[in-house]
Amino acid sequence: MEINTDRIKFNEPLRLESGRILEEFELVYETYGKLNEDKSNVIVICHALAGSHHAAGRYADEAKPGWWDRFIGDGKAIDTRKYFVICSNNLGSNFGSTNALSIDPATKKEYRLKFPILTISDIVKAQMRLYKKLGISKAKAVIGGSMGGMQALCYAIEQPDFAEHIFALATTAFTRPWAIAVNKLAIEAIRHDPSFKDGFYKKDDLIAKGLPGLAIGRMAGLIAYLSPKLFNRKFGRDYSRTDGLYELFGRFEVERYLEYNAYNFPKIFDPLSYLYICKTMNIFDAGRNEDTLENSFAKVKGKLHLISFSDDMLFFPEEMEEIRDIMIKIGKGNQITYKMVESQSGHDSFLVEVEKFDKYIVELLES
Amino acid sequence: MEINTDRIKFNEPLRLESGRILEEFELVYETYGKLNEDKSNVIVICHALAGSHHAAGRYADEAKPGWWDRFIGDGKAIDTRKYFVICSNNLGSNFGSTNALSIDPATKKEYRLKFPILTISDIVKAQMRLYKKLGISKAKAVIGGSMGGMQALCYAIEQPDFAEHIFALATTAFTRPWAIAVNKLAIEAIRHDPSFKDGFYKKDDLIAKGLPGLAIGRMAGLIAYLSPKLFNRKFGRDYSRTDGLYELFGRFEVERYLEYNAYNFPKIFDPLSYLYICKTMNIFDAGRNEDTLENSFAKVKGKLHLISFSDDMLFFPEEMEEIRDIMIKIGKGNQITYKMVESQSGHDSFLVEVEKFDKYIVELLES
Repeated sequence: MEINTDRIKFNEPLRLESGRILEEFELVYETYGKLNEDKSNVIVICHALAGSHHAAGRYADEAKPGWWDRFIGDGKAIDTRKYFVICSNNLGSNFGSTNALSIDPATKKEYRLKFPILTISDIVKAQMRLYKKLGISKAKAVIGGSMGGMQALCYAIEQPDFAEHIFALATTAFTRPWAIAVNKLAIEAIRHDPSFKDGFYKKDDLIAKGLPGLAIGRMAGLIAYLSPKLFNRKFGRDYSRTDGLYELFGRFEVERYLEYNAYNFPKIFDPLSYLYICKTMNIFDAGRNEDTLENSFAKVKGKLHLISFSDDMLFFPEEMEEIRDIMIKIGKGNQITYKMVESQSGHDSFLVEVEKFDKYIVELLES
Repeated sequence: MEINTDRIKFNEPLRLESGRILEEFELVYETYGKLNEDKSNVIVICHALAGSHHAAGRYADEAKPGWWDRFIGDGKAIDTRKYFVICSNNLGSNFGSTNALSIDPATKKEYRLKFPILTISDIVKAQMRLYKKLGISKAKAVIGGSMGGMQALCYAIEQPDFAEHIFALATTAFTRPWAIAVNKLAIEAIRHDPSFKDGFYKKDDLIAKGLPGLAIGRMAGLIAYLSPKLFNRKFGRDYSRTDGLYELFGRFEVERYLEYNAYNFPKIFDPLSYLYICKTMNIFDAGRNEDTLENSFAKVKGKLHLISFSDDMLFFPEEMEEIRDIMIKIGKGNQITYKMVESQSGHDSFLVEVEKFDKYIVELLES
């Protein structure tokens, strides 16, 4: 499978939900597979908080492949010999698309805290510009999990003519206070880190290790994205073997795991991007523009497929069942499917337990 | 109800589980009610991570009463007209008992990081010294929740002749990696706060606001001690009314709640104490001295009463059911009772939903 990575600059202003306007913006994106002649084989993939446009395949110098490589590729569920797959880096994220550290054309300086608050709708609107530039007006499917699932719901409601199938995994119609609280911890840990300097940190100062406050915030995510049972199975009460023989007073394996993953994260992720993305997730509410969720979901024209995960502790299965019930209530029972996967990896199951739902998605796609 | 607060200094060395020895130590404690003539009306209360010896009643200048005041007092479930109640501040905690900021008699300086690691068994052993000084060799009951419940289990196993009834609420026989992870977040947030200065912070520097890193750590606790459903009910997606009309971009009520409670906490709690107490909880394992839990619980002579809470997300009901099953398996079915309370306040239910279990405890006490 060939990976095509590209960047497009958009010069037409993007009016944001906040009323602010981005006079120009850039999106970096990847495509896999070939667009067929009647442009009927497009699949859009939406990434989550810490994801990027690099959804599948492996660059020459890369140890790990793209974040959904188990799901997307030649001969995989999203078969790149058959489909033309597009995944763009979300507006506001720091993997190449316009974000808080980009240059504000009005001042020729980095936006920093002057970067506008973005909503999921804004991110989707920006992506629609990309498809237009690529000459694409319709997709076979939009697929996303977690924050990517919020985008999928947004496509279903706000871009109802775009996609035939919408797959929203491990997500919610509006972020509940529990998930907001997990994000809050990250926001506070970043904000109170003296090296953050109220958003005016020097990037060079953070290059080697990144911001410690972001590592602490990431640790909250690492806990909330997994599950108590997974922790029991994966770590138990083992002591870290790398620490030598300090049983009683040493470091537990779970502590080593959290340290390793939390402190590596800020090496690749920017704290201002993290703050802006947390805000985007926190304020997501599919019912906002219509006052009720019923009115919002009444706009859906495509087939909406919901997949929840039984041990997801961030976006609970009940939250997705609520959407299913609304669709049935408003007479759209023939446009909704729902499946709860018996999962063992918590919220992250949509990334790591792909074999539990990939064939199901293929069936729906080909039905 | 009269509150008697006192402090005792112990000059006989206390040999700790680590092999270290405390040449001397102090405990501060409170008693309520009167010791009867045959000393048969003693009830010991054990406090949790952030608790203190001030379990009940209200000091003259106090806005809030003691932490278990709903449960203990004249005419309450633990009726102080009938029982003589003792609650001591745990060794290692910063409310008056010997802790990391106490003076090491060997060096005449504060221990700081030279303070020994404590185990739950050590804390209980220190308390036993207190009862001896008070001329008490037996208790009608020992009662504790969370880390206080760990102490209760330790009394049951390691001081089997001491208490007739042991009530362990919202606790576990050994801390699982999920709870260790929540503590880990606090440990890391404290450790990486530059004001912590590797444990050599000046107390005066922290007097007004406390250590921000401890506030972040406390926030992890505030999330884990409650429950997603409680958050939904208590906060929903309300915006903070104190922030004015910033709906879309303002602060959610749940964020205000977390900030308020997290940032107030370090004003009363010392970061080194927090680290030492987290460690104590993390290494708790009722089976450690006997290799198996079965062998440990075989030592129990009193009646062990377990109370779990259905929505406890820190120490799950299954963890307490495990203890019940072990007691039955080893032929001690007549010494064990178990009740799961249908709770709505998560782990903190043992503190705030007292009316759901207090009569049940009275019945067992008087049976």
